[in-house]
Amino acid sequence: MKEFDAIIPAMKRLAKPSRQVDLEDDVALLTPRRGQIATVDALVEGVHFLPGDPLETVARKLVHVNVSDILCKGALPSEALLTLGWPRERDQVDLETFARGLGEALSEWEISLIGGDTVQHPAGLFLSMTLIGACIGEGPVRRGGGKAGDHLWVTGEIGAGYLGLRAALSGDGDCQHLSHYHVPRLPPIGTATVLASHARAAMDVSDGLLGDGAALAEASGCGLVLDLDAVPFAEPTTTRSERLAMATGGDDYQCLFAADPARSDLVEADGRTRGLRLTKIGELTESPGLELRDGGRSVPLPEVLSYQHGA
Amino acid sequence: MKEFDAIIPAMKRLAKPSRQVDLEDDVALLTPRRGQIATVDALVEGVHFLPGDPLETVARKLVHVNVSDILCKGALPSEALLTLGWPRERDQVDLETFARGLGEALSEWEISLIGGDTVQHPAGLFLSMTLIGACIGEGPVRRGGGKAGDHLWVTGEIGAGYLGLRAALSGDGDCQHLSHYHVPRLPPIGTATVLASHARAAMDVSDGLLGDGAALAEASGCGLVLDLDAVPFAEPTTTRSERLAMATGGDDYQCLFAADPARSDLVEADGRTRGLRLTKIGELTESPGLELRDGGRSVPLPEVLSYQHGA
Repeated sequence: MKEFDAIIPAMKRLAKPSRQVDLEDDVALLTPRRGQIATVDALVEGVHFLPGDPLETVARKLVHVNVSDILCKGALPSEALLTLGWPRERDQVDLETFARGLGEALSEWEISLIGGDTVQHPAGLFLSMTLIGACIGEGPVRRGGGKAGDHLWVTGEIGAGYLGLRAALSGDGDCQHLSHYHVPRLPPIGTATVLASHARAAMDVSDGLLGDGAALAEASGCGLVLDLDAVPFAEPTTTRSERLAMATGGDDYQCLFAADPARSDLVEADGRTRGLRLTKIGELTESPGLELRDGGRSVPLPEVLSYQHGA
Repeated sequence: MKEFDAIIPAMKRLAKPSRQVDLEDDVALLTPRRGQIATVDALVEGVHFLPGDPLETVARKLVHVNVSDILCKGALPSEALLTLGWPRERDQVDLETFARGLGEALSEWEISLIGGDTVQHPAGLFLSMTLIGACIGEGPVRRGGGKAGDHLWVTGEIGAGYLGLRAALSGDGDCQHLSHYHVPRLPPIGTATVLASHARAAMDVSDGLLGDGAALAEASGCGLVLDLDAVPFAEPTTTRSERLAMATGGDDYQCLFAADPARSDLVEADGRTRGLRLTKIGELTESPGLELRDGGRSVPLPEVLSYQHGA
């Protein structure tokens, strides 16, 4: 259960020189600062990625799903700890490939790998990352800070997660969203500042837009009216069932946030001047529950609001 | 990949009221303080514990192996994040049992569970805990801070890990060390203060006394002379092979530390007045490598210095 065991050489190269000592020690020293947050997300072979997925992209995906949580709280990622459950059937080449992808993603987001544990794993690859982040504002933007009347905004596009997974499962190598399945595209880093400046509540869209929107509203003690035809879908849609599939498919890793309607112009201007795509898709309400609108009128909710991994 | 999914009810009860909001959010806010350290340790079914082990003790063991790392750095545990890879074949009763053990151990060590991720796992239980700690002194006692001439000390007894595992594997329910296999006994919490006050280098004995002692010496740029007959073994021994088995068996979770010989009386007095058992078992040397002594003379090293999990 010691740190990095046989995997030390591949992993040690990922640590920044000044922190290298940490990977040989049993603990890592966190950079002292106020407003530090932590999140942990795991990826399991056969549940969150397919056994044949390239390990370079699996490693990048692990970093991105964690970075998504930090960005969507109005914070910047800083330090990571990795748990690597490594199966016997994966060899040294696989490990080097994994380490390369991990190193690139950590470097891209300026994250220091400060510790970890590598363990033997009987079946498949089990990955878990704890990511520390530094809040830009006083503290993290909470999931439950929204108020009735707040506008609900979303960054980027919705549906790339659904379309990418479908392409991966069907072997459609030409789908432009396959790359998003392998390594989720995240909103630009400036999103964190926009959220820290304007959002009263926020979370990332990882389970599915409808389920996540309902969760943000419920945590805020509100309901939500969501305009399905306002949602910026990743592909043009002609039917409601297509829209619902993309709005419940999950793995979009965009930011969903609620802001005071009085700040709408500010939010738009802040996003536009940063080159962010921000779209207003709904409104928090006094009365609880999720109301879905399409073409200007209420439509029935689908049976399932979110994608269930491995269900 | 959302936080705690179906397991929210069982886990939420573990969070302290003031932090409860965190378990429903995507991130947790760390308590701001200087000298914060982090460690992560994983336990895998079939590798670190047996499939039939009671989940209550498995949960307690997960906490203890992480607390061990923090104590041995002269720090007190504070906050934890949990990754729970939960197999389909485990039911709600198992989950309640696991949560009860986890809650008791967290409470005993005054640790707040501030976040986590629960994922479906195809095979067996996969547990990973990130534990944050607060240093008592300026910073953590490093593994590599020892100097030639330093005395090497160990807390408690060595060999309970080996004897307990042997009893578990052979089905010897009468062995007094079986409970240590299930839930490692840790040195008292005052150990952290002793280390923060006197130790120049420290680590926990988790892989095996000889391997861990050699690792501490090497990280400190030193060699080590270790007196096998000075080691406080958990059972009286008559042969050297028994002593070597206990000194290489691992999972003792005691603290190993190096201190200036000029502080020996202080270390002894500090330990004695706290009711700690502290034993001087060796000395760091200028010349590299591990020299083992037994009965006052050098003896050959065993082939393997540490226990390899699942090897």
